[in-house]
Amino acid sequence: MRKTDSFEELVKLDLERYERAGKPEAVYAEGKSVEDILAIAHKVISEGKSTLITRLTRDQMEALKFLDKVEVNERGRIAVVGEKRQEKIGKVAVLCAGTSDTPVAEEAVVTAEYLGLEAIKFYDVGVAGLHRIIEPIRRIREENVDSVIVIAGMEGALPSVIAGIVDVPVIAVPTSVGYGVNLGGISTLFAMLQSCSSGVAVVNIDNGFGAAVFASLISRVKMKTSGKH
Amino acid sequence: MRKTDSFEELVKLDLERYERAGKPEAVYAEGKSVEDILAIAHKVISEGKSTLITRLTRDQMEALKFLDKVEVNERGRIAVVGEKRQEKIGKVAVLCAGTSDTPVAEEAVVTAEYLGLEAIKFYDVGVAGLHRIIEPIRRIREENVDSVIVIAGMEGALPSVIAGIVDVPVIAVPTSVGYGVNLGGISTLFAMLQSCSSGVAVVNIDNGFGAAVFASLISRVKMKTSGKH
Amino acid sequence: MRKTDSFEELVKLDLERYERAGKPEAVYAEGKSVEDILAIAHKVISEGKSTLITRLTRDQMEALKFLDKVEVNERGRIAVVGEKRQEKIGKVAVLCAGTSDTPVAEEAVVTAEYLGLEAIKFYDVGVAGLHRIIEPIRRIREENVDSVIVIAGMEGALPSVIAGIVDVPVIAVPTSVGYGVNLGGISTLFAMLQSCSSGVAVVNIDNGFGAAVFASLISRVKMKTSGKH
Amino acid sequence: MRKTDSFEELVKLDLERYERAGKPEAVYAEGKSVEDILAIAHKVISEGKSTLITRLTRDQMEALKFLDKVEVNERGRIAVVGEKRQEKIGKVAVLCAGTSDTPVAEEAVVTAEYLGLEAIKFYDVGVAGLHRIIEPIRRIREENVDSVIVIAGMEGALPSVIAGIVDVPVIAVPTSVGYGVNLGGISTLFAMLQSCSSGVAVVNIDNGFGAAVFASLISRVKMKTSGKH
Amino acid sequence: MRKTDSFEELVKLDLERYERAGKPEAVYAEGKSVEDILAIAHKVISEGKSTLITRLTRDQMEALKFLDKVEVNERGRIAVVGEKRQEKIGKVAVLCAGTSDTPVAEEAVVTAEYLGLEAIKFYDVGVAGLHRIIEPIRRIREENVDSVIVIAGMEGALPSVIAGIVDVPVIAVPTSVGYGVNLGGISTLFAMLQSCSSGVAVVNIDNGFGAAVFASLISRVKMKTSGKH
Amino acid sequence: MRKTDSFEELVKLDLERYERAGKPEAVYAEGKSVEDILAIAHKVISEGKSTLITRLTRDQMEALKFLDKVEVNERGRIAVVGEKRQEKIGKVAVLCAGTSDTPVAEEAVVTAEYLGLEAIKFYDVGVAGLHRIIEPIRRIREENVDSVIVIAGMEGALPSVIAGIVDVPVIAVPTSVGYGVNLGGISTLFAMLQSCSSGVAVVNIDNGFGAAVFASLISRVKMKTSGKH
Amino acid sequence: MRKTDSFEELVKLDLERYERAGKPEAVYAEGKSVEDILAIAHKVISEGKSTLITRLTRDQMEALKFLDKVEVNERGRIAVVGEKRQEKIGKVAVLCAGTSDTPVAEEAVVTAEYLGLEAIKFYDVGVAGLHRIIEPIRRIREENVDSVIVIAGMEGALPSVIAGIVDVPVIAVPTSVGYGVNLGGISTLFAMLQSCSSGVAVVNIDNGFGAAVFASLISRVKMKTSGKH
Amino acid sequence: MRKTDSFEELVKLDLERYERAGKPEAVYAEGKSVEDILAIAHKVISEGKSTLITRLTRDQMEALKFLDKVEVNERGRIAVVGEKRQEKIGKVAVLCAGTSDTPVAEEAVVTAEYLGLEAIKFYDVGVAGLHRIIEPIRRIREENVDSVIVIAGMEGALPSVIAGIVDVPVIAVPTSVGYGVNLGGISTLFAMLQSCSSGVAVVNIDNGFGAAVFASLISRVKMKTSGKH
Repeated sequence: MRKTDSFEELVKLDLERYERAGKPEAVYAEGKSVEDILAIAHKVISEGKSTLITRLTRDQMEALKFLDKVEVNERGRIAVVGEKRQEKIGKVAVLCAGTSDTPVAEEAVVTAEYLGLEAIKFYDVGVAGLHRIIEPIRRIREENVDSVIVIAGMEGALPSVIAGIVDVPVIAVPTSVGYGVNLGGISTLFAMLQSCSSGVAVVNIDNGFGAAVFASLISRVKMKTSGKH
Repeated sequence: MRKTDSFEELVKLDLERYERAGKPEAVYAEGKSVEDILAIAHKVISEGKSTLITRLTRDQMEALKFLDKVEVNERGRIAVVGEKRQEKIGKVAVLCAGTSDTPVAEEAVVTAEYLGLEAIKFYDVGVAGLHRIIEPIRRIREENVDSVIVIAGMEGALPSVIAGIVDVPVIAVPTSVGYGVNLGGISTLFAMLQSCSSGVAVVNIDNGFGAAVFASLISRVKMKTSGKH
Repeated sequence: MRKTDSFEELVKLDLERYERAGKPEAVYAEGKSVEDILAIAHKVISEGKSTLITRLTRDQMEALKFLDKVEVNERGRIAVVGEKRQEKIGKVAVLCAGTSDTPVAEEAVVTAEYLGLEAIKFYDVGVAGLHRIIEPIRRIREENVDSVIVIAGMEGALPSVIAGIVDVPVIAVPTSVGYGVNLGGISTLFAMLQSCSSGVAVVNIDNGFGAAVFASLISRVKMKTSGKH
Repeated sequence: MRKTDSFEELVKLDLERYERAGKPEAVYAEGKSVEDILAIAHKVISEGKSTLITRLTRDQMEALKFLDKVEVNERGRIAVVGEKRQEKIGKVAVLCAGTSDTPVAEEAVVTAEYLGLEAIKFYDVGVAGLHRIIEPIRRIREENVDSVIVIAGMEGALPSVIAGIVDVPVIAVPTSVGYGVNLGGISTLFAMLQSCSSGVAVVNIDNGFGAAVFASLISRVKMKTSGKH
Repeated sequence: MRKTDSFEELVKLDLERYERAGKPEAVYAEGKSVEDILAIAHKVISEGKSTLITRLTRDQMEALKFLDKVEVNERGRIAVVGEKRQEKIGKVAVLCAGTSDTPVAEEAVVTAEYLGLEAIKFYDVGVAGLHRIIEPIRRIREENVDSVIVIAGMEGALPSVIAGIVDVPVIAVPTSVGYGVNLGGISTLFAMLQSCSSGVAVVNIDNGFGAAVFASLISRVKMKTSGKH
Repeated sequence: MRKTDSFEELVKLDLERYERAGKPEAVYAEGKSVEDILAIAHKVISEGKSTLITRLTRDQMEALKFLDKVEVNERGRIAVVGEKRQEKIGKVAVLCAGTSDTPVAEEAVVTAEYLGLEAIKFYDVGVAGLHRIIEPIRRIREENVDSVIVIAGMEGALPSVIAGIVDVPVIAVPTSVGYGVNLGGISTLFAMLQSCSSGVAVVNIDNGFGAAVFASLISRVKMKTSGKH
Repeated sequence: MRKTDSFEELVKLDLERYERAGKPEAVYAEGKSVEDILAIAHKVISEGKSTLITRLTRDQMEALKFLDKVEVNERGRIAVVGEKRQEKIGKVAVLCAGTSDTPVAEEAVVTAEYLGLEAIKFYDVGVAGLHRIIEPIRRIREENVDSVIVIAGMEGALPSVIAGIVDVPVIAVPTSVGYGVNLGGISTLFAMLQSCSSGVAVVNIDNGFGAAVFASLISRVKMKTSGKH
Repeated sequence: MRKTDSFEELVKLDLERYERAGKPEAVYAEGKSVEDILAIAHKVISEGKSTLITRLTRDQMEALKFLDKVEVNERGRIAVVGEKRQEKIGKVAVLCAGTSDTPVAEEAVVTAEYLGLEAIKFYDVGVAGLHRIIEPIRRIREENVDSVIVIAGMEGALPSVIAGIVDVPVIAVPTSVGYGVNLGGISTLFAMLQSCSSGVAVVNIDNGFGAAVFASLISRVKMKTSGKH
């Protein structure tokens, strides 16, 4: 049965490729005990590997800080355990509107850097004051980024405005920041999916990690073609 | 019982004021027969009064066209029956993004004009191309409008962007234009209610009529103070 | 390129106008630490400016009380930092049904006064006892207010009833007070958006701040025309 | 096994009582063919019984008109097949706001009369004009009705207002009349369930039939006590 | 203006009638402080009046227990402050399925008794064991109750089953007991509103108080006719 | 790499087993043209195979009737193309409440019979008249069925009541029959998922086909153990 | 009246059958006090019976541990009180994706074993790595299980993939694990109900207990046929 | 004012870049008349430009066929008007499960090709038969595509499975194909957003056009780096 033979082959290839594919092994900390998290971190370090741990609680972060080879980003509630990878694969711009969206932005930035991206941060960009988008757009162009991650709560208009101006893929991350009709970010998500600018795709609410993984895959595509892979 | 005496008095005042309050008697045509509509129109005209008829069907519009003193706006599915009022009470800007939102915009414009407002129309304004908002904003300022009606479907970002720049009340009208997560305009409505610009209030989906009535009340407030009332 | 030139010009005008446009710089306290809030307040005061801080927690309010030039409204969870503006621009009536809606009403009143409005409060108005709406309506008329803010939870009928009687714009604020089918205020919001009285526009659930900003813009329109601007 | 014995007994009692309990055998016409409806009508008449048929289509109504002993109410899309009952059991007031709610009101009225109630109709009652509720309330009191059926679309405020004034049970019927946030009547339903007046219970959207059956049960309770049963 | 005269008259009548209409003044405790609740209770008692206080917290109940003339029902989180009324006006059966629904049932029972109803309780009735409904139905018939309050969570089938057997009005109260698709009781509410038995009307989720007020109005209708009013 | 070897092996086994596993190849007709359907039918017949075609339109059914070896069930909008299988694998009871649910019931029955089940039909079973469930339950026991398919719209109570009495798996199928709060069957679905009787599992709204396939798998499990496979 | 006679007979049969039908008496601990739970456990033990207690809090579990004849599964928040039954009735496979779903899986496993099933556990199966499903599928086939319980959160794809390969009934349990668009598991539930593999039925979110009861009924069907009943 | 100067500059750059940025001018045909569509097509052709027209009705397509330089794809309801661009920029794989998803897939393919992508189509890929994903995955690897567009209805599991195996970005497009709990594709959308594989981003329901534009931006990023821009 030829098809299965090739599948076997594919699976084998897959396992090898997986390593360098840039999809990080990540641990979702929510619902795990402090002990669980410490055990995972110890194991990763002792095996000489590395991982990300996302959605850490305050207690989990306090415990992790005592470990060597662990870098905790408190605002982003994320930790890098083990060695970061060295190889640089591209650039991503990370935009958000301000204080309430920064935890998601930091999760994206830490993940992006872990995956070999240079992350250029703009944390004070909003549609209610158009003058605040000028500088980011200039930089996005000058820096020749491969993609833009736009994190926004409330009416979720920022990705549309940005995608109307830049010519790279815009990865939109709705946040659960808001009240009333916000519905935990679903209203913002729906606004983003309806963007009247083309060139926007969306990940789950508050999923800074997922946006950064996606951005890294875009940059890897670029490398592939330019002969590095 | 004093309170009730005053209520009686208030009700009396109310009936007198109502006439000049600018809230038009309007007929919602949906669910009415062509005969019903014609009968209403005839009665209004024969009594020397005037009214608006909104949400007309094609058949109802065809029938109304044969009457004198009836002005039908097909795109807005709205008719003015009887005499328009003469007195001018102020100016309103009506913005929308394009073809699919124009029916709602036309409903707003016809209503606004019927109520004595000068309506300045901008029908090609969208957040996906910021250069398209420059001209409207310049005019809004030059013309010294009392309020702005912003009609938008999709991600509903336009009111936020506009309200971030102008200094008059912005009345936002979500439209039911879209597909997928649009939910008949509810996603757009929710985005607008979450506008991160202050100075925005919202009316029901596709309710161009209601937005224009509200705009006329704003302009009437202005008149009141300037001594006309 | 002429358009952009004018845009530059507009942006410049905008920045100048913004100052006196009546849209307050406001700080949304939710998610900020006590230290953050204190730092913001100190900075605003030291720069001789003023701001509103909304949605304060009990701890944040306790800390702010020790500062000079800070006025905390505990029920409304709002603080005025720095000097209130002096200039009076108009009048607004603020109506709500009772104890559970007063926090939102107080947020509206403090914001309105900060923006130069005289706020006339009616905190015991409900549709289940029509005799309770007589006095407010008499006063609304005597006082010649520019707009009415109606704050209501539950079935959200009050704006419809009020707008059926008064001839000024009614800004409706749904509250998240209720249980069962209340859905955090969304049911109330939807009832208000469907008001069978025209002359009603709505802001986000519990958004007393936004309603007051909108009311101030209405009163400013009035001033503009009467030659003050 | 005693319990089952008694159950058997109860079931027997039930079958006898059912006849005079006032819960009509009713046929829901939706999804049935014209032939089905005619066959049902013929069978009922030939057996000397009677029934209601609700939610008739235009075609079904046209066909039924040719039968003797069938009374079709076109606006209410309901037919009485066979003899109406003679015995009068009480009075109910049926209120609604106007043209779009009358089909539901007519369904309620026909059902109520079929069940022996005298139905007093008020078809022009709305919260946007309080003067329109005075006459109905006077009559409700003069006529000493047993219950009030309030049919309303849009913001669904009428039951709250009425129940705040009358001292009999108010049965609220939300209608699916509206657009935008109406959600096929669910917004109206939710507003009614949150009525801040006590003394209101609700039936399904557009369910004029169910409201009338419930009203007849209330009147029957009254009769029971006064010794007629 | 005759209409208003009569309205004045009606309002006057209304105030007098209201007293004996059986709609209790009730205080909704949620969001009030212990001090607020104590103050209200003291005031009611000192004025020789009475009231119900619903949705009490544990702390509020502890505080109330020290007062004379206050009767606290802990399971129902409800207190009777002042004298209960003496006059008996009828009977109501209160059914629920078990432990999780009893708080709502107790709220209904306390309210019903406060309003002069004799409440017959059945707290172990469920559709998953039909043998458990036999005894309640026998008693409902023997006792000749005026109405039945059916409190149910989960699939909400109990009102349908009961209304299929009894010949008095069934007032259904959905509860917020459940998980997963329960949606805080909305699924149960919707099931009840779709009851395929006629003779069912519904109040808001967990609203035992409202159901009992409605039941008392039904019993009062009965009294009215039998000449007591 | 052992795992993949075994997977290859498993896939091979799978393909062989699939044939006799009882999961029918079925064609979902919605969105296909009459020509598409005819082509599929011809191909199946010419290859000596068989299939089910579900959700047929009237036109598609008219066209299929002219073919040999095609059996169309118009009420169930389903056709058996080719030979039915002969082997009998067990019994299933199919219950529903009446006319509006019968299309779904017929889809289930035709599918069940196609898969080798004897289907015992009860099409007049409802919770609003408990006497109507006695006969089905007696038969369910006498006939020793392997499972029960309960199809219900409206409040969806029937599966709970049935599962409280029988000792075999109950497969519940919500239907989209209803209006108002029915939400296209989702309310009914949610009621069923909350069944307070254990022993109920649910398939998608109107999915009579899926329920029957599941029932056949239950009966096959039985056969497996008894040594037939 | 014959029908009722037979019903009486059926009820009698029912009560006898119920005992051995395999539907466990289970106690839902949520909302009960530690004392309530201890009292129930004592009663069950002293009467020589057995029961399951589900959804235990940490405190309730701590208290139960001190009792003899009580076996607490902390991860599954479930306890077996009294003797487990001895008789073995079949096999079920229980699959889930990992840490966050294991509480639901443990509830299913404990229930299944209590009901006489041998439960084969696979707790690291996910669609994002197809190689992880190979081993479970091999075992499912080798072990000749009667049914498969698939517990999944997130996109809920696992039941579809599994049901595409195995030939026994798949009982899917959505979990409330996730964030953003998860909606407390409803998104996962809806994905499962739409499975494009036939042979899947679904129970309520997080309802491991219900899935195991259903699985036990499937295995009992098998036993019945093989002559034990 | 430097910032604005640079903004002017940026806008200028933007207009130049826009041309070659690969975001096509596209016309959304829904709601437009046949005449409108023809006029647009004529204008585009006469100006020597090109455009896509999406969501065409049958009538609009019939009319367009008579024009030169218009290529209509009936299944995808999309037309290319004017010249396609020649330059090849990369490869994309387009996967879907079968007949009902092909319209969306065709919209994606036509758009992708118009934008210079080579589109490799796999139209029979589904999670219910894992053997059907082997061939696509082999080809995806052999062909070295830059991204994969996965179009899926129902449970939306395909993107998760695919993204678990490939190492390029997966753009998921939910379709509105389904019934019952499908909710017009929103259930499928939510499943996809919750994908437990990282490397997936999502566009609006049925938005094949948007997915292809996004894919082209990814391929352009690749080109940019390799020095072509």
